[in-house]
Amino acid sequence: MKQVKAYGATSATSLIQPMTIERRDPRADDVVIAIDYCGVCHSDIHTVRSEWGPASYPCVPGHEIVGRVTQVGKKVKKFKIGDFAGVGCFVDSCGKCKSCKANEEQFCEVKTVFTYNSQELDGKTPTFGGYATSITTKEKYVLKIKKGLPLDRVAPLLCAGITTYSPLRRYGVKKGQRVGVVGLGGLGHMAVKLAKAMGAEVTVFSTSLDKEKDAKKLGAKNFVYSKKPENFAAWTKKLDLMINTVSVDHDLAPFLACLKIDATLVLVGAPPTPNQVSAFALIGGRKKLTGSLIGGIKETQEMLDFCARKKVFSDIELISASQINEAYERTIKGQVKYRFVVDAKTI
Amino acid sequence: MKQVKAYGATSATSLIQPMTIERRDPRADDVVIAIDYCGVCHSDIHTVRSEWGPASYPCVPGHEIVGRVTQVGKKVKKFKIGDFAGVGCFVDSCGKCKSCKANEEQFCEVKTVFTYNSQELDGKTPTFGGYATSITTKEKYVLKIKKGLPLDRVAPLLCAGITTYSPLRRYGVKKGQRVGVVGLGGLGHMAVKLAKAMGAEVTVFSTSLDKEKDAKKLGAKNFVYSKKPENFAAWTKKLDLMINTVSVDHDLAPFLACLKIDATLVLVGAPPTPNQVSAFALIGGRKKLTGSLIGGIKETQEMLDFCARKKVFSDIELISASQINEAYERTIKGQVKYRFVVDAKTI
Repeated sequence: MKQVKAYGATSATSLIQPMTIERRDPRADDVVIAIDYCGVCHSDIHTVRSEWGPASYPCVPGHEIVGRVTQVGKKVKKFKIGDFAGVGCFVDSCGKCKSCKANEEQFCEVKTVFTYNSQELDGKTPTFGGYATSITTKEKYVLKIKKGLPLDRVAPLLCAGITTYSPLRRYGVKKGQRVGVVGLGGLGHMAVKLAKAMGAEVTVFSTSLDKEKDAKKLGAKNFVYSKKPENFAAWTKKLDLMINTVSVDHDLAPFLACLKIDATLVLVGAPPTPNQVSAFALIGGRKKLTGSLIGGIKETQEMLDFCARKKVFSDIELISASQINEAYERTIKGQVKYRFVVDAKTI
Repeated sequence: MKQVKAYGATSATSLIQPMTIERRDPRADDVVIAIDYCGVCHSDIHTVRSEWGPASYPCVPGHEIVGRVTQVGKKVKKFKIGDFAGVGCFVDSCGKCKSCKANEEQFCEVKTVFTYNSQELDGKTPTFGGYATSITTKEKYVLKIKKGLPLDRVAPLLCAGITTYSPLRRYGVKKGQRVGVVGLGGLGHMAVKLAKAMGAEVTVFSTSLDKEKDAKKLGAKNFVYSKKPENFAAWTKKLDLMINTVSVDHDLAPFLACLKIDATLVLVGAPPTPNQVSAFALIGGRKKLTGSLIGGIKETQEMLDFCARKKVFSDIELISASQINEAYERTIKGQVKYRFVVDAKTI
């Protein structure tokens, strides 16, 4: 076992503070990564505060991890020392079930081992995330990152990127289509960039009037100030797909009304309390409401390669580890453009 | 114009009572139908009581209409005098828009003229439904009904039948699949019969324990008493499709949990107040929630032909027109097995 410096919480109400965790000695199929950067995801906050159910403590969050390979097990083939590598939301799964065989390890029928606040497949060893200087992970669940990219801006792709890329791809977004993005935060700003890079005309719906300028700078053609119900009228039945990134509960009917017949609204934000949805809003026009959960390893690699090719990276604010608590407060208030990334040198 | 005997309401709070309405003289493309039977749909009650928004009065409900052709316009080709014919939920549409050209006149971009409580394409002439002795309708919107069928049991197919048939077909229900039906009323009992006729294994979810026997008689293999949350556990991720016919608001999460990954829950019941839906219930397993609105004329004809071939008809209780008010009360209480049908001879 190796002692590794990290930042985490000791209870649902404690601050994120320095601590030491243990990482296993690398097995034959493991890769050891020296972490350079780790993004701060809203899920980190929900989890570490036990808002999504009771967490296990100590809890070291972080699942938007990039760094360099420093050690490889003897059976590792995909990586060599010095390669750039990434770890996303999960680090293991059974590998044998229907979902795993379909490259959708996030839906493993046995157990998806999440990067933090989870247990390894042994059912007991806790997992710790990327607010740390190093991580040891099975090579199969490690992503390759091309050389020459801005690594700090790549980190958020591992969660915010794949979470929005996956539904955009699944619903076949392409040139000539109109995509709506609800909410312009960490996920929303990636959805705008990715949909635009796929060729779509993007419309941002936001409750913050002052985000119009940013929305357009990020690639949106249109902006709808969604606090005024009358602003929706012009968008009735206009959109081919909507990605809803809002993580507070709200009425979905006005957004569903903007979809064409048979079109889909995908939830990627998860409010702790249920949304309201009128059956009429779904029945008239056979609108579809669904959700999407990150993506499998294969699709995550495809997304990273797409982003490298299209030069799509997150807009970030780089912070030191000691600023994480402040960053949480600002994330909750939506005061970040558009993702905090922890510089692991400061851990 | 022709004076026609009918039953309808003069206000949101009045009883259904005898009245006289006017039907137009048949145009070149019109068919005049002497009504034999008309089903009593829960929509009739919601509409006539202005529960789905203010209705126009007098209001003559009824959109599950069967009868015999007594007169045809000179350009009519599909029907001749003496043919059996049906009229469903709508009687006209623009015929030129994308939806109409796709045989989905229920989504006409100009105006779907509903069979009652609507206006003709002229924007002023009110439409009156099937609680009447006769109806005059454009042949294009009239369905052909084969000879030798139990006409009274065919009537409910025009709404309850197509409403459930359409999503079952759209989601490709076939032998080897498992279909869940939530609620065993007018729509639910048709969903069971149709899914079974398409080869599926059917599971009924009901809050009435005493419906188990009926569910199985109608063709269901399994019955889940849905008032007990623990009864859902055995059905986690088991179903390929669910049709939810319940028209009071409820939490959809336990039902979504019964769906396989990427599978769909279709709402065909429309509660006046919104349902609750947790984003987690959709995100985990990418479950889809949607609605379905009747079906186009082409699909309705396909459904009638399928039902004739498979001998699928509604279970009904035949009533006289003077019993409609009592039938409404019993429909609301779920005390009908499974559809009231008005014998038009009694109007």
